[in-house]
Amino acid sequence: MPTGRLEAFSDGVIAILITIMVLDLHVPHDTTWTALRDELPVLLSYVLSFVHLGIYWNNHHHMLQATDHVTGLVLWANLHLLFWLSLVPFTTGWMGENSFARTPTQAYGVVLLAAAVAYYLLQAVIIRSQGNSSLVRRAVGGDIKGHLSPALYLLGIALSGVRNWLGAGMYVVVALIWLVPDRRIERVVSGRAEESSPS
Amino acid sequence: MPTGRLEAFSDGVIAILITIMVLDLHVPHDTTWTALRDELPVLLSYVLSFVHLGIYWNNHHHMLQATDHVTGLVLWANLHLLFWLSLVPFTTGWMGENSFARTPTQAYGVVLLAAAVAYYLLQAVIIRSQGNSSLVRRAVGGDIKGHLSPALYLLGIALSGVRNWLGAGMYVVVALIWLVPDRRIERVVSGRAEESSPS
Amino acid sequence: MPTGRLEAFSDGVIAILITIMVLDLHVPHDTTWTALRDELPVLLSYVLSFVHLGIYWNNHHHMLQATDHVTGLVLWANLHLLFWLSLVPFTTGWMGENSFARTPTQAYGVVLLAAAVAYYLLQAVIIRSQGNSSLVRRAVGGDIKGHLSPALYLLGIALSGVRNWLGAGMYVVVALIWLVPDRRIERVVSGRAEESSPS
Amino acid sequence: MPTGRLEAFSDGVIAILITIMVLDLHVPHDTTWTALRDELPVLLSYVLSFVHLGIYWNNHHHMLQATDHVTGLVLWANLHLLFWLSLVPFTTGWMGENSFARTPTQAYGVVLLAAAVAYYLLQAVIIRSQGNSSLVRRAVGGDIKGHLSPALYLLGIALSGVRNWLGAGMYVVVALIWLVPDRRIERVVSGRAEESSPS
Repeated sequence: MPTGRLEAFSDGVIAILITIMVLDLHVPHDTTWTALRDELPVLLSYVLSFVHLGIYWNNHHHMLQATDHVTGLVLWANLHLLFWLSLVPFTTGWMGENSFARTPTQAYGVVLLAAAVAYYLLQAVIIRSQGNSSLVRRAVGGDIKGHLSPALYLLGIALSGVRNWLGAGMYVVVALIWLVPDRRIERVVSGRAEESSPS
Repeated sequence: MPTGRLEAFSDGVIAILITIMVLDLHVPHDTTWTALRDELPVLLSYVLSFVHLGIYWNNHHHMLQATDHVTGLVLWANLHLLFWLSLVPFTTGWMGENSFARTPTQAYGVVLLAAAVAYYLLQAVIIRSQGNSSLVRRAVGGDIKGHLSPALYLLGIALSGVRNWLGAGMYVVVALIWLVPDRRIERVVSGRAEESSPS
Repeated sequence: MPTGRLEAFSDGVIAILITIMVLDLHVPHDTTWTALRDELPVLLSYVLSFVHLGIYWNNHHHMLQATDHVTGLVLWANLHLLFWLSLVPFTTGWMGENSFARTPTQAYGVVLLAAAVAYYLLQAVIIRSQGNSSLVRRAVGGDIKGHLSPALYLLGIALSGVRNWLGAGMYVVVALIWLVPDRRIERVVSGRAEESSPS
Repeated sequence: MPTGRLEAFSDGVIAILITIMVLDLHVPHDTTWTALRDELPVLLSYVLSFVHLGIYWNNHHHMLQATDHVTGLVLWANLHLLFWLSLVPFTTGWMGENSFARTPTQAYGVVLLAAAVAYYLLQAVIIRSQGNSSLVRRAVGGDIKGHLSPALYLLGIALSGVRNWLGAGMYVVVALIWLVPDRRIERVVSGRAEESSPS
């Protein structure tokens, strides 16, 4: 099967997730800038989740760009990833409305950790379905970021027990690491384009 | 008419349904793991509905993969299916917030039963529009799962009257049966790809 | 410009409108069938709006199937239609939660009337941009339904002043008239397909 | 990378933003036209935001029509634009529910200003990635509107401090300026179509 509809469905789900989080920004009754400041923790946690979901969409986009076809197993591995991402608005709201309190911040990290594992599984399933010499396989290579993120999430969950902001800080670090888009895949894909163009 | 826009619209509706259910997960005011445990029935019913909607999306994807064109009747049969699926978030919330009480669990089953019947009708309308020798027709074959599901939903609705968890358990069984994607269609479609490729 | 992205955007908006109406179905606190019966007026107005939006999506699909390209004016005429459709969930909720009371039922009709006019304008703008000999032009022909609907909406708004259910009944009549999809366009489009196929 | 999926994702996000604003229209408990009048400021601010988002979608559509491929940086510049647009429903609700009070009206302008800057950045990033002789570059040309809008938003934010309605009035002016779609790009694109067609 071609990848078109899998991409369209994932785009739809991520687009909705990224926007329904705004519904957690409660319109203040007061009309002062101070009233807006009270929404600041919710806004900050929204920004953090927006960037994380943006990263997932970006990497998903790059990975499927290098994928030729999808199997039934890939569809389910993708739905599994979307399931964990769908819990992000919930933990974002819990963390934001409680100003980054310990337990909600840990729950936020647990959901991100599970999403990272789900993404890793999806990547593995795609590589297996494409064969070892596939573009994705070559592109992922050492995959340092992919292995670092879960470790940092675990660290964040543990550090939240010490100081609340340490956990959230760790999640920010993961976001910063990934903000640089996956140039590896981009390079390999454009390499293929050059190969297939007339010399 | 080509199938593209029907697929896009269905993708959109199912993507929205699968994500707005998360809005029923109320952010707890407390910041303890215990507070999160109170949301467990809502979370469990969310997982059950996520899997069910994922199954529908998967099977819908496979079926339309084997469909060449759509008629006006197919459009309406598809909207009819989407209507019943659109009631899933409502019954999911009712069942989850009342910890799988009898009547909400039965209402949940009734909506799933109606969706199963609507899917069957859509399949029949597509087969008729494609002709008896069509890919879909060949692919569906005996369609044991398709005939088993409505019976199991009915059993679940009846058993909810005896023990609440028996009904929900039956819906879980249907989900497990379908989690194995529809390999029959996949096989026939890839068979066609091989036929049409140069020998 | 090609029609692809206009269709995708319209599909997205209509898919969201058709599903966020479900959020107006409030999960009852009670767990009895009686509690569900109290939601019946909301459910009925939901069904009515679901069918109306389904009709708009269907006709929109058919019309753009016969359209070759879009201009800037077509984009805005389309957004104008989507604006009025976007008010449907609001009037649906108002009408349903007040059991089809007079003023909400009239407001519901006013929004549907405005949407019908907006659809007519969109059709006129498309025909002008495609030229008088265009497929859409030929397909629309006498367009009896298109002229009948606004009249019936007006009648419904007026009759709501006499008896509440007369107004809602009139809207149901419009829905029934349109439930038969626009076979005229379907016929002309398939006619074109035959012309362009090798004889 | 082709532009298809970037367009699809942006369409999804803007379609959702444009429709979830309707959720801020609270269904009145009363069933009189007077009750509806109380929702008028919310409805007016909704119309203003609907037009603004429609303008962004329209211009985005035109710009990507003239774009051949996207890079990783373009993806992030696009997400940055979507981030600011995603705050529009929040400030719309705040401004509308407080009948265009000073601070909410200024906050509304700040978000629109940030979105305008983000759009400008996206345009710059696309032009850089396409080369100076690109279609977008030629099409944008002097870009008077693009430079005027931020100035008018700033003026609106300042004037809100003098009279509330002056600020909102300024935002309406920007909307009116842009309602005329970007014919420049349309002209250049259709010029290309003619060039590439057989003479």
